Amino acid sequence: MTSDPFIAVDWGTTNRRAFVIDRGRVLRIERDAQGAATLTADDYPAAVAELRERLGDLPMLLAGMVGSTIGWRDVPYVAAPAGLDQLAAALHRIDDRTAIVPGLCDRSDGRADVMRGEEVQLLGAVAAELVPRNALLCQPGTHCKWATVENSRITRFTTAMTGELFALLRGGGLLARQLGGDVVDGPAFHDGLAEGAKRDLAASLFGIRVSGVLGLRDDRDAASFASGLLIGADVAARLGETDASEAHILADPGLGALYAAAVSALGGRPAMIDSQPAFVAGITRLRELAA
Amino acid sequence: MTSDPFIAVDWGTTNRRAFVIDRGRVLRIERDAQGAATLTADDYPAAVAELRERLGDLPMLLAGMVGSTIGWRDVPYVAAPAGLDQLAAALHRIDDRTAIVPGLCDRSDGRADVMRGEEVQLLGAVAAELVPRNALLCQPGTHCKWATVENSRITRFTTAMTGELFALLRGGGLLARQLGGDVVDGPAFHDGLAEGAKRDLAASLFGIRVSGVLGLRDDRDAASFASGLLIGADVAARLGETDASEAHILADPGLGALYAAAVSALGGRPAMIDSQPAFVAGITRLRELAA
Repeated sequence: MTSDPFIAVDWGTTNRRAFVIDRGRVLRIERDAQGAATLTADDYPAAVAELRERLGDLPMLLAGMVGSTIGWRDVPYVAAPAGLDQLAAALHRIDDRTAIVPGLCDRSDGRADVMRGEEVQLLGAVAAELVPRNALLCQPGTHCKWATVENSRITRFTTAMTGELFALLRGGGLLARQLGGDVVDGPAFHDGLAEGAKRDLAASLFGIRVSGVLGLRDDRDAASFASGLLIGADVAARLGETDASEAHILADPGLGALYAAAVSALGGRPAMIDSQPAFVAGITRLRELAA
Repeated sequence: MTSDPFIAVDWGTTNRRAFVIDRGRVLRIERDAQGAATLTADDYPAAVAELRERLGDLPMLLAGMVGSTIGWRDVPYVAAPAGLDQLAAALHRIDDRTAIVPGLCDRSDGRADVMRGEEVQLLGAVAAELVPRNALLCQPGTHCKWATVENSRITRFTTAMTGELFALLRGGGLLARQLGGDVVDGPAFHDGLAEGAKRDLAASLFGIRVSGVLGLRDDRDAASFASGLLIGADVAARLGETDASEAHILADPGLGALYAAAVSALGGRPAMIDSQPAFVAGITRLRELAA
């Protein structure tokens, strides 16, 4: 591969974003719902050809679930500690103009974790100097990723299915009827954070029911409390296992602000990082390293 | 009311059990699916008449969800600390032959919890001397109840929706496909207990997915691990907030054995208590006190 311009695709399970990037500048972005879950492995040659037809006949770097068992190829994970140089060395080349970025796995401390796609954004934030070379990074979402970066490499990381638990509780069971409201950063959310910091989720969650039965909290605030509870337990656990007091949060503004409020309330210092420049910096650097 | 014989009904949300009790001896038991969720308030006079027709034209004491907002009457909670004497004094009398046992609420320590029906069994275990007058009691289930009994009164209690979280995870979301297996008290369950004791549920649960992806654990063992994780977090939290090392477990043998294994593994001493004699002793004593 040579330098510039190229097409980068952040290919998630549900959605994908395609960028045309020229010397680190984004010329074009397209987002659609053709995530890996909507495609079989056999669909990718046509999907990639169609992207080139629309965006230009350019080299392509693909990151995310495209490299998983539900994607085009099952690309082996690179073991942490790893930086962009290790990822570049392990690119899975489909042909001389198309490659897939491998994900990361963490097998340290007798535990195990995996990520696919987030590594580009996280390490890109470091490459672009949006975060220090030694930092705690947080990428909130359905499955919230927390990564410790040391000397520009991800040394360990943890995934918490915080967002998914919220969705499950909202979707069925005892509390679903109470959790229909919007989540806002107010008193109920902060009550939830304090309760979540006790890290006793199954009991704290029943407290939502109790508050409804005894009339202790308006059910319109129950979703905010529940979100605070789940985010608070996540943030408290992560701040508890690191020396870092600063958490660099890569997220859309809404969810990012909730995590920032949680980090502040639980004794850390949040810093908000724009995730798109981080991805662009990471994928651009990968392309340079692979050239 | 006079003494003996009488009909006692443990009227739950989904099921009910009706006992004919004579001087503390059970003459007859019937169990059916006519729980409170299947009845409106207007259905109860006929439901009670039908029970009397079948079991004998006797006085009746009704406990459980029959006394809730989804039951016959919304009977106010008695505040903990409370024993059988306080419950007897607060019986809700429908007529001179029919009464509903109130539930308990706990508003101590800035927290709140409620129970309906479990109080009869828990305090009955104490009345029957199946457990000491000062003890930690555990009633596992969809919503696991933990009660601290001091001087034969429930002084505080906590509900953990441990069983419900398991059901939600099994019913949908990322892990559902892995959690179809049986839960058994083996190595995977004990691995789950140790992980659960970290009290970091949202992260530990994602580990189930990771183990599947990386092939670290047979998916047939995933349900046992998940159950251990949830029960372990529950037991660790409860043992952590009490001085008691012994936990008296009132449950069916299957679930009771899992909780007993968890209590042992996490440094406590389990004692299994037969829950039916506990209920019978509790409701019989209530009837004597109310006479």
